[in-house]
Amino acid sequence: MIVVMKPGLGEDAIQKVVKKLQTNGYQIYQSKGVNNVLISAVGADKYDYLKQALEAIEGVERVIPIKVPYKLASRQFKQEDTVIKVGDISIGGKQVQVMAGPCAVESREQLFEIAQIVKESGVRILRGGAYKPRTSPYAFHGLEEKGLEYLAEAREKTGLYIITEVMDPRKVEMVAQYADILQIGARNMQNFPLLMEVAKYDKPVLLKRGLSSTIEEWIMAAEYIMSNGNSQVMLCERGIRSFDDTFTRNILDLSAVPILKEITHLPIIVDPSHGTGKWRLVAPMARAAVAAGADGLLIEVHNHPEEAVCDGPQCIKPRLFNNLIQEVKKIATVMERT
Amino acid sequence: MIVVMKPGLGEDAIQKVVKKLQTNGYQIYQSKGVNNVLISAVGADKYDYLKQALEAIEGVERVIPIKVPYKLASRQFKQEDTVIKVGDISIGGKQVQVMAGPCAVESREQLFEIAQIVKESGVRILRGGAYKPRTSPYAFHGLEEKGLEYLAEAREKTGLYIITEVMDPRKVEMVAQYADILQIGARNMQNFPLLMEVAKYDKPVLLKRGLSSTIEEWIMAAEYIMSNGNSQVMLCERGIRSFDDTFTRNILDLSAVPILKEITHLPIIVDPSHGTGKWRLVAPMARAAVAAGADGLLIEVHNHPEEAVCDGPQCIKPRLFNNLIQEVKKIATVMERT
Amino acid sequence: MIVVMKPGLGEDAIQKVVKKLQTNGYQIYQSKGVNNVLISAVGADKYDYLKQALEAIEGVERVIPIKVPYKLASRQFKQEDTVIKVGDISIGGKQVQVMAGPCAVESREQLFEIAQIVKESGVRILRGGAYKPRTSPYAFHGLEEKGLEYLAEAREKTGLYIITEVMDPRKVEMVAQYADILQIGARNMQNFPLLMEVAKYDKPVLLKRGLSSTIEEWIMAAEYIMSNGNSQVMLCERGIRSFDDTFTRNILDLSAVPILKEITHLPIIVDPSHGTGKWRLVAPMARAAVAAGADGLLIEVHNHPEEAVCDGPQCIKPRLFNNLIQEVKKIATVMERT
Amino acid sequence: MIVVMKPGLGEDAIQKVVKKLQTNGYQIYQSKGVNNVLISAVGADKYDYLKQALEAIEGVERVIPIKVPYKLASRQFKQEDTVIKVGDISIGGKQVQVMAGPCAVESREQLFEIAQIVKESGVRILRGGAYKPRTSPYAFHGLEEKGLEYLAEAREKTGLYIITEVMDPRKVEMVAQYADILQIGARNMQNFPLLMEVAKYDKPVLLKRGLSSTIEEWIMAAEYIMSNGNSQVMLCERGIRSFDDTFTRNILDLSAVPILKEITHLPIIVDPSHGTGKWRLVAPMARAAVAAGADGLLIEVHNHPEEAVCDGPQCIKPRLFNNLIQEVKKIATVMERT
Repeated sequence: MIVVMKPGLGEDAIQKVVKKLQTNGYQIYQSKGVNNVLISAVGADKYDYLKQALEAIEGVERVIPIKVPYKLASRQFKQEDTVIKVGDISIGGKQVQVMAGPCAVESREQLFEIAQIVKESGVRILRGGAYKPRTSPYAFHGLEEKGLEYLAEAREKTGLYIITEVMDPRKVEMVAQYADILQIGARNMQNFPLLMEVAKYDKPVLLKRGLSSTIEEWIMAAEYIMSNGNSQVMLCERGIRSFDDTFTRNILDLSAVPILKEITHLPIIVDPSHGTGKWRLVAPMARAAVAAGADGLLIEVHNHPEEAVCDGPQCIKPRLFNNLIQEVKKIATVMERT
Repeated sequence: MIVVMKPGLGEDAIQKVVKKLQTNGYQIYQSKGVNNVLISAVGADKYDYLKQALEAIEGVERVIPIKVPYKLASRQFKQEDTVIKVGDISIGGKQVQVMAGPCAVESREQLFEIAQIVKESGVRILRGGAYKPRTSPYAFHGLEEKGLEYLAEAREKTGLYIITEVMDPRKVEMVAQYADILQIGARNMQNFPLLMEVAKYDKPVLLKRGLSSTIEEWIMAAEYIMSNGNSQVMLCERGIRSFDDTFTRNILDLSAVPILKEITHLPIIVDPSHGTGKWRLVAPMARAAVAAGADGLLIEVHNHPEEAVCDGPQCIKPRLFNNLIQEVKKIATVMERT
Repeated sequence: MIVVMKPGLGEDAIQKVVKKLQTNGYQIYQSKGVNNVLISAVGADKYDYLKQALEAIEGVERVIPIKVPYKLASRQFKQEDTVIKVGDISIGGKQVQVMAGPCAVESREQLFEIAQIVKESGVRILRGGAYKPRTSPYAFHGLEEKGLEYLAEAREKTGLYIITEVMDPRKVEMVAQYADILQIGARNMQNFPLLMEVAKYDKPVLLKRGLSSTIEEWIMAAEYIMSNGNSQVMLCERGIRSFDDTFTRNILDLSAVPILKEITHLPIIVDPSHGTGKWRLVAPMARAAVAAGADGLLIEVHNHPEEAVCDGPQCIKPRLFNNLIQEVKKIATVMERT
Repeated sequence: MIVVMKPGLGEDAIQKVVKKLQTNGYQIYQSKGVNNVLISAVGADKYDYLKQALEAIEGVERVIPIKVPYKLASRQFKQEDTVIKVGDISIGGKQVQVMAGPCAVESREQLFEIAQIVKESGVRILRGGAYKPRTSPYAFHGLEEKGLEYLAEAREKTGLYIITEVMDPRKVEMVAQYADILQIGARNMQNFPLLMEVAKYDKPVLLKRGLSSTIEEWIMAAEYIMSNGNSQVMLCERGIRSFDDTFTRNILDLSAVPILKEITHLPIIVDPSHGTGKWRLVAPMARAAVAAGADGLLIEVHNHPEEAVCDGPQCIKPRLFNNLIQEVKKIATVMERT
């Protein structure tokens, strides 16, 4: 790291910083600029630990990290792409994987009908929420374990794999008995007890980006799961909060896809349904996501969006969903994927 | 609520919406504008339930709520200010309450030394984290239960009341045995299982605003706690995420104070330490917060900020802390508070 | 428009609003909700004029517009896509148009060399800045009229059409003598005297989105140009400001493309160079833009990015530019464009 | 500046950067970290010129500035506070100056009536817009020169000094003949031709912060005016754009006040009217601004807000204005100002 000292300081102030760094195992290189003294500290690995302590010393202007704060998730740590196996399919490999289904499991009939549509389109993974994080305590919060049972039954009937959200560290064990992929929602990206809990199970985790999380914070959240023992993490861009919510709930940040592909080795999924909040925008943004290099898509489909108990406006209907799958296939072919 | 239909629709599309509303118990008023038909729905109380279902109907342009989505937290529901009792002091009354202490409990000695400083300044509530949510899995995460024991011991010795953060629904019961006030951190504002868990205990809750939470989402999070049985909620503004983090970690949104005073009856606390992230800004923003009408302040104090294991740069030293208390007292007097 | 009154008001307060609306030519429909009285005002067209006046009346909670504030730019006003002719090519038609060249015109040699590369790739429009808006007064601000002369000479030699930025209303006449398309930069999107000045010339205008402009404000800026006599406006998404600038200068908001296609009839161009600020991200975001439905791309190319006087990090080199054009062509084919 | 090289590079890549820096007059200090080579460049002053050129060199990870990009506006350049004289009063000195008046000059009568109210409250500066930047081309844009004449007449009658906005570089000369202080609006903060034009006149300039401008960009805009010959610049915080506009148009960033006081020597004014957009919030935020250390306030007052042609909802009425002045005086006294 580099410590930038304020202009016009005596040797004392500088030695205080040098000493602090040396007692922590760093080797020191000083360079005197026109105004500021710079102290380059090399060798130890305690930036996380020391940054704030150094900045609290009078005379220190700022501390600049040189190394990135994540390790296991970084491309430097692992050169080749992580490919996650779910039964007989792979996520992060040559095939673009679509995960589709209703926002919430509402009933056995609703789920089975949609599962059938999903299956017939050629998609292999069914999404559906049994536990729903809702802004209002008065809204529908999911069928809970009953919903998980329906999902397992739908898997039995259709051969689709199941992805579903878990919100509570006390429920991870139970949800993991039903799901093939555990989903961590945007609101829980920095729910650290939950991240540590999902790390205990041998299940892939789809980690959604927080509403206003930086890319670095998001990777650090993945690092929580990985450093606690579960390396099967995929990242899901689902839109970030911006100043304009007239037409979309969020702004889908597609540049995150090529950035993450460069700096991490993890698969990147894009959710154009939550990312926009409008069904009319789902197909163009799904195409764009694949053209930007995404490894997969998470899409809300509903047979009767106007009856959906949540997120109806962003669900697409079966006919449009089939069109979307056809369009995405063409883009995938151009990208030399399948 | 008002449903705005798209221009140029037939009677069928409109009747579909009208029917949906009527079967849900609403009374309907239609008005035909130059381009759009408007449907005003009055009487039932199912906006949360119906909004998205209506927007998913083709022909519906948008649905506009008329009533606010929160009830128990609203000024309409309860006219007089909520005053929360903690032992022999009150929060939300005439007295501006300061809660001060270190970011994290680091050791018995550190905590007791700071507690003494806090006590001598006349402040009545001691803050200190035993469980710390940290962006990095490699950073210090707190002394955990040992930290809680030190806090309880400090209370014993000084008579200060204790506020400390809880992050995990599995730990609420234990933390509640030690703390006088439970703190929900910004990252957990929408951790709904945690909100429901703290609602079960007869302890005041300080609910921090999420990094990019709207004021309405924040009140809805309070509503989660209140509607689950605990009405002793105070709201804490601690800065929101913006496009400029060169000089501050966050932007302290002081206009939230008079807004919340108008629309809710809950006490409003301001945290100028996290709200700015720089100790030099803590005193001016503490003064400004009280001038804007805040009921209390949450302030990080450290005897040796440069040794602090977390948030050193935003901790103020004892001498400055005493100045701050003096300045805040003068502003409080102007505001006719104490 | 709809005027929502506060709960619990007497008839007087309501009549004050009704009168104000009636004297302005509106027809009134009242509906009494459980708490609030709603006043629907229909027929006149003075929302822009009355909104704030109404909100300043005591008792008024808020005023909700029903009609969109733009007219000439709206899809309702003009159903078919606007196709802008520039010499023998069209923007907004079947062909995806690329505009490429250096950020700034630096010298005759630099411009001609790049123009040659652009021409050989099959692209038809050359970009290059003669007047550069720079954050620092100490940075390079362009060759000014000399730069325009070089651009005109490059057009002569290569047959490429020229797009260049104009920043000053006093310079529009002169720039219009050289340019085929006038560019309004992001910082000037709401420079109203400039918008009114470019409206006077019979030249297409490319209007970049402001750094934190809403889509509605952006369309209103186009409306300024159109309502002052120039309907040849194309909109250019170039990234918006967000809370995370670690990896990109801006967040490219590609969902703006399908939104604008739905609500306006104007051509939509995307600038992935400014939109990301990193050359490595230009190609994936160019592909994504076309997959989302963009009518064209604005791309910075430089033969020696490390010598570029501005925006070097986001310029792509000739070889990568040719790859990009090939990739974009394939996506365009999938989109049934050329 | 410091150039951080990517890990694992050969000597060639490093020498390319070293050479570039040396030919530009820098002295070089290299330090080899565990992964990255760092090049510290000292002595020359070409960061603005070289940053992007360096980042475009392959192998360069990033370039970190050490010195701030502004000079004339910095506290290092000039230690003592700038105090701007306007007739017999000072801005930036011991006295907190209030500038008050209508958003727009609407008529002779309206202006004179409000001017009288302003004068009677003890305030010395009258604000009023003759040229109004409006989002919509169909809204009221001001009385133009007629409005300036009324302002001059009001000055004559009341002895108040006049501040008014100028939007067009072609009008600066004319506006400067009437105004005592020239105002640059938020939308024009980076209208560089306008900044250079106001620099030519011997009139104080109030420079509003752009809607999403960083503090550094804002100071750089001041630097444009100062480096072109006019050092009488005051900065005006007026709220920044955020993700939540339910209750306020903008978020008033009061932490900007103590930050600017530390890093620049220029007077800081706060506009709580635009900063919030709601009259009910003007008084608390005016108090908070002074408590945070502001040198002055810019406040919209209107005798009949519900008849105001612009910004009615944020105008306060005469009686409330007088209360506000009393409250602000008390806070100013606490701050040891008058």
